[in-house]
Amino acid sequence: MKKLAIGIDIGGINTAFGLVDEQGDLFAESVISTRKYPYVEDYPTYVNDLAQAIRALIKSLSFEFTLVGIGIGAPNANIYSGMIEQPANLWKFREEETDRNEQRRLFPLAEDLSKAFGGVKALITNDANAATIGEMVYGNAKGMKDFIMITLGTGLGSGFVANGKMIYGHDGFAGEFGHVIAERDGRVCGCGRKGCLETYVSATGIKRTAFELMSTMPDRSRLREIPFSEFDSAMISAAAEEGDPIARECFRLTGERLGRALADAVTVTSPEAIFLFGGLAKAGKWIFEPTAHYLEENLMFAYKNKVKLLPSGIQGKNAAILGASALIWQEEA
Amino acid sequence: MKKLAIGIDIGGINTAFGLVDEQGDLFAESVISTRKYPYVEDYPTYVNDLAQAIRALIKSLSFEFTLVGIGIGAPNANIYSGMIEQPANLWKFREEETDRNEQRRLFPLAEDLSKAFGGVKALITNDANAATIGEMVYGNAKGMKDFIMITLGTGLGSGFVANGKMIYGHDGFAGEFGHVIAERDGRVCGCGRKGCLETYVSATGIKRTAFELMSTMPDRSRLREIPFSEFDSAMISAAAEEGDPIARECFRLTGERLGRALADAVTVTSPEAIFLFGGLAKAGKWIFEPTAHYLEENLMFAYKNKVKLLPSGIQGKNAAILGASALIWQEEA
Repeated sequence: MKKLAIGIDIGGINTAFGLVDEQGDLFAESVISTRKYPYVEDYPTYVNDLAQAIRALIKSLSFEFTLVGIGIGAPNANIYSGMIEQPANLWKFREEETDRNEQRRLFPLAEDLSKAFGGVKALITNDANAATIGEMVYGNAKGMKDFIMITLGTGLGSGFVANGKMIYGHDGFAGEFGHVIAERDGRVCGCGRKGCLETYVSATGIKRTAFELMSTMPDRSRLREIPFSEFDSAMISAAAEEGDPIARECFRLTGERLGRALADAVTVTSPEAIFLFGGLAKAGKWIFEPTAHYLEENLMFAYKNKVKLLPSGIQGKNAAILGASALIWQEEA
Repeated sequence: MKKLAIGIDIGGINTAFGLVDEQGDLFAESVISTRKYPYVEDYPTYVNDLAQAIRALIKSLSFEFTLVGIGIGAPNANIYSGMIEQPANLWKFREEETDRNEQRRLFPLAEDLSKAFGGVKALITNDANAATIGEMVYGNAKGMKDFIMITLGTGLGSGFVANGKMIYGHDGFAGEFGHVIAERDGRVCGCGRKGCLETYVSATGIKRTAFELMSTMPDRSRLREIPFSEFDSAMISAAAEEGDPIARECFRLTGERLGRALADAVTVTSPEAIFLFGGLAKAGKWIFEPTAHYLEENLMFAYKNKVKLLPSGIQGKNAAILGASALIWQEEA
């Protein structure tokens, strides 16, 4: 009988899920709102509604299959505990309760979903790690034992693979490369510190850079017509295509910061390749060229001309659902 | 019958070797000169002489044993190829030949020693990796699956262990943490770049810091009596003990740079512990206290109060020979 895994991608707004086979073919997919369940006490209902929606999706299939497991990608998820731990944007305390002990916001989603599906194996990890495993199982990192995945979304996520295995670290929280310090005493980061790489290199980071450059460069730019609140990183790509000097400098600087940081990362794991994934990676040559240039320029001689900078092979193909389901296929292999 | 492994530590001046059992007990040790064999064409003689000296050491033992393998720690050694590749201070071309293609300075020492001992298993890696495996097999990292080893000698070496395995990278050259950039456009490094961590944090680095501080601080200091050429890092520890303000600032700055760099490294592998090993680690609290302070201060919240900074457990116990032999015991386990 055909074997399928459920892949679930939990975002702050929606939860997308689908049924995926070992080759990465997606047989059915659907979505429920995450935002409809904003508070701690909504979590049990969320789990119930999600399980029900998955059951409905399963029934919609016209063939029989064996369910081998449930893989989940979610912010602040820990593969060891199976929990989502203190997520910034999920299942919060109501305002009047915000000084409650944060330690108690632990959501054992892997266990809860496993129970809902007769004890099937369920694994959860953060979204960047899920994308990394997706790249390894279905994407351009197939067969690679040592690589780095950089996911460029609102923030910068990362996954490091060494010896063919995901590095989770002793506590499950390895791979937070968005929080290496790119500029000492630099931009304020959501993590409470300053100068983290993701404040420069991410959809949000490049937008901040655009506004910094509008303040420091005298050049004319169509970007000056757009208010901060309506600005997104795709507008910078579009402007760069048209030769806008601020947009081009914006990508050069972003690539410089990313390239430098990656040159440091290479000294740790000496990867065969580094993959760029996510919204900002769609800017194509505008982000790849300066990143590759500054990566190479900053590499120690032992690594020069050895590290490939590549686009993700799962980009666009429901990558988050695939990545989550790959957690299960990786275990099955 | 008792099983023993040969551990060999190749330095620029001497080659030390010994017979070690699985518990890390050293049954016999000896040494030959490395410096006596300075040129490419001396390498075959070096291998012969080393093999002969090892045979003599084996004969000196009063009991029979099974030789399970030969582990070698050496600069620029690559575990995958079994070679010492373009070493800066070993088996050079004679002066008149220096523009010969550097690619040809490859010394297949693992294979050569294996042949000399009837085809027994032989493994080679760089000295910092060997110390790391020594820490894992015999030292304070026993049972840890995720840790970082920092070796503070003339330079700064490192070894990263994740999922219980040494990270060698795709090419065998992972773990060059001495060459992350600590200060953009900072001190000139032997690797040809600027601002590498080891130009600040190593026996040589702290000495450079002492001389920088003598130029910038007005304070009286006994360090001002010692010329650069006679200066060593132990003098800074001794002065710090006596309250010397330049020596104390020297350690604070060194700990700050190391602590900051390690906080970045933690985002990659999230280790249970970081070990400090080597000459500068002997400075004890003078190096451990500021490093621990700045590590903790710079960690992202998810890692705070979780990462132990610990002394090596093999320090002083012929660590380099033990580490090299551990390459074999790790494989046997």
